[in-house]
Amino acid sequence: MLTLYYAKGSSALAPHILLEEVGADYAVHEVPIAHGAHHEASFLEINPKARVPALMTPNGVITENPAILTYIAATHPQAQMLPDTPFARAGADALNAYLCATVHVAFAHLQRGARWTDSEEAQAAMKAKVAGNMAECAAMIEAHYLTGPWAMGDRYTICDAYLFLVPRWMAKAGVDLADYPKLEAHHNAMLERTATLAVMAIHGI
Amino acid sequence: MLTLYYAKGSSALAPHILLEEVGADYAVHEVPIAHGAHHEASFLEINPKARVPALMTPNGVITENPAILTYIAATHPQAQMLPDTPFARAGADALNAYLCATVHVAFAHLQRGARWTDSEEAQAAMKAKVAGNMAECAAMIEAHYLTGPWAMGDRYTICDAYLFLVPRWMAKAGVDLADYPKLEAHHNAMLERTATLAVMAIHGI
Repeated sequence: MLTLYYAKGSSALAPHILLEEVGADYAVHEVPIAHGAHHEASFLEINPKARVPALMTPNGVITENPAILTYIAATHPQAQMLPDTPFARAGADALNAYLCATVHVAFAHLQRGARWTDSEEAQAAMKAKVAGNMAECAAMIEAHYLTGPWAMGDRYTICDAYLFLVPRWMAKAGVDLADYPKLEAHHNAMLERTATLAVMAIHGI
Repeated sequence: MLTLYYAKGSSALAPHILLEEVGADYAVHEVPIAHGAHHEASFLEINPKARVPALMTPNGVITENPAILTYIAATHPQAQMLPDTPFARAGADALNAYLCATVHVAFAHLQRGARWTDSEEAQAAMKAKVAGNMAECAAMIEAHYLTGPWAMGDRYTICDAYLFLVPRWMAKAGVDLADYPKLEAHHNAMLERTATLAVMAIHGI
């Protein structure tokens, strides 16, 4: 049995969608980060980094979206959510790393600037660059990393559940999805899947 | 044949060390980023994200350290650089994602603040928090993610080559490695390996 620790509307959407896609036997445990629940001792025992998502497994906890997504896929091989060859797998790993370390980080400067500076003026200055950075990330994904129709080509993989977050981040940053037709088509395709809709309903989005 | 695109002293040290550790057949191609070579058209064809490292393979290019490290390990299975089980593998993936998206990003606010703001005052304000953030990351790794003697326990894995970068980032941020005895012991163990020393000589560090 797996338990996903999540906050509504957070990046935990990605592994939540993947758990649905693979037909996993799982439970969910909400961590209301808006109320600071991720800093409470009971959650810090689960993830000392005070972040969601975290996935409790029979062996222990897994943190970080790229690791959680890969684990879910590896333990549900019948769903074929990982590319087959080392090179194709590296393409998926690279996109996930870019989403985690560049795109999500670019977006985080909108509302989480306090991670990197205590100055409120500097946090405001950082916010001013978020839309430009998110547009640059969207253009990069559109031109180089979204093969189509799915992220890695003909088959839905772990990357698609993660890529689903990008248009949501773009909207909050004020970047128009319609300027990126491949990303928009991908998002629309995601919104046609039962797993995506089921998870969105749980998250209230 | 593999070709590693690298800059001296950059985070390309990690895959460079791993290529040596696994005994790969590889070449190197220096990208002098201090002279802006990563923004030249010839390199943007290799990596449109304008970052090193990039690894050219017979199938095409791979970017992002977690993906490059995993690919090198997967294509040199005799070196046993990846953990064996999905859960242990997820532990390695999670540490690599943390190094990529949290620790490297925290460090990047020291010299690459222009990525996130155009304001020089805000960049200066961000620099002021880097030492504290790097100390927090070091404490997190020390307490929760460095099993010892190697990152994942008894066996050297892909994570060790990546973790080698952390004490270098800490030094530049003014954080004393001696305050983190497990990290210091890990760094000293890395400095005893032939592969590490060979790569350090090439990088002139």
